[in-house]
Amino acid sequence: ALVAAIRPPEQNCATASSLRGRKVMITAGPTREALDPVRYISNHSSGKMGYALAQAALEAGAEVHLVSGPVHLQTPAGVVYHPVESAEEMLAACLAQLKACDLFIGAAAVADYRPVAVAEQKLKKGAEELMELRLTKNPDIIAQVAAQTPKPFTVGFAAETQNLLAYARSKLARKGLDMIIANDVSAPGIGFNSDENAVTLITADSETHFATQSKSILAKTLIEYIAAQLPSPSIKS
Amino acid sequence: ALVAAIRPPEQNCATASSLRGRKVMITAGPTREALDPVRYISNHSSGKMGYALAQAALEAGAEVHLVSGPVHLQTPAGVVYHPVESAEEMLAACLAQLKACDLFIGAAAVADYRPVAVAEQKLKKGAEELMELRLTKNPDIIAQVAAQTPKPFTVGFAAETQNLLAYARSKLARKGLDMIIANDVSAPGIGFNSDENAVTLITADSETHFATQSKSILAKTLIEYIAAQLPSPSIKS
Repeated sequence: ALVAAIRPPEQNCATASSLRGRKVMITAGPTREALDPVRYISNHSSGKMGYALAQAALEAGAEVHLVSGPVHLQTPAGVVYHPVESAEEMLAACLAQLKACDLFIGAAAVADYRPVAVAEQKLKKGAEELMELRLTKNPDIIAQVAAQTPKPFTVGFAAETQNLLAYARSKLARKGLDMIIANDVSAPGIGFNSDENAVTLITADSETHFATQSKSILAKTLIEYIAAQLPSPSIKS
Repeated sequence: ALVAAIRPPEQNCATASSLRGRKVMITAGPTREALDPVRYISNHSSGKMGYALAQAALEAGAEVHLVSGPVHLQTPAGVVYHPVESAEEMLAACLAQLKACDLFIGAAAVADYRPVAVAEQKLKKGAEELMELRLTKNPDIIAQVAAQTPKPFTVGFAAETQNLLAYARSKLARKGLDMIIANDVSAPGIGFNSDENAVTLITADSETHFATQSKSILAKTLIEYIAAQLPSPSIKS
């Protein structure tokens, strides 16, 4: 009884230290790709899932780097916060902080394409009824992270509206990920901008479904699940 | 002294009833033009100026219809709220409520163009390094409002990064507006997403500059200025 009483409080919870001593990087939110000083292309990602994962990783004892596109969420107290706008900025922020990172979770909805040219002044509406906007492919942030040596344990998201699991499996293999979290963003009440989510967690040899629940509870479950899969800490340089 | 004492409180303020009995419609925020179920084109409008104008018009005694694109602001208590996403939805909401409207203020940053086709499913990133996005011109909401018979007193905004006053004067004439509020969105600390603004109010025969101040105070000043220019109420059908 004495031993139990002098145990630090967090030790009473089996999961409170599952990421102690680990460096975790999480991307969250959308990116914004500027057309000119006032217009941009973006997407409906609210950042809620990524922020919930950052909070859960903090509570699991990790040093958490949150690389976030523009969202309307409170930054969790204790994270190292790296705000960015575009995919190129997000890539730069990730690579700059990636050294000795044990776990990378790419929860951001990164724009696949950006305008080829960003106008310095606001584009004026012309007489033309039609306009062509030329786009160029953005860097693939998570594939670049997964290609580093040494690489962190790399977890991606697949947010799709159809053929979800097949596409997620293909993305897992193609990008060299260790795990992917498949998220049907067409289902009502879950996914983008919802407070709840239901996902399927996929590795090379497993598929685990998590039913609809609050993003904060789901995040804790996912972080514990991921923490249990992490390779043992290596000696860091 | 007795007369002053029994006066209703709002009568002690010279401006509290300047829009009593008037129907005012205000558009605010950006529009979002969908590319597919998750992606869109939008702009940096926060909606703050339009919402401040709605609040000021309410305080001036008006019935206020607020037609708003997606923003992260509290809807002022007492407005009739019409949330929309796209320019086409905004136009439909405006025209549906325009009957017997005395004053229309177009403070929304309406997207000039929208994608020609909206994909029903999330577009997949292909192998292509470049992509062409075909855009088509959106309806001109304020020009359509100003072309109604009878038309409300119609106030537009010109948010520009260069040649501000010249462009604002041209827009005033071209769109048949009664007044235009010119806003230099390239100046630091004012305009999009700022809490302060400085504007120049332009009519066919006047130009009035309002120095940098909070959007809520500026909104009250503008509403009083506009209220003083409104034609006398007509008998409504």
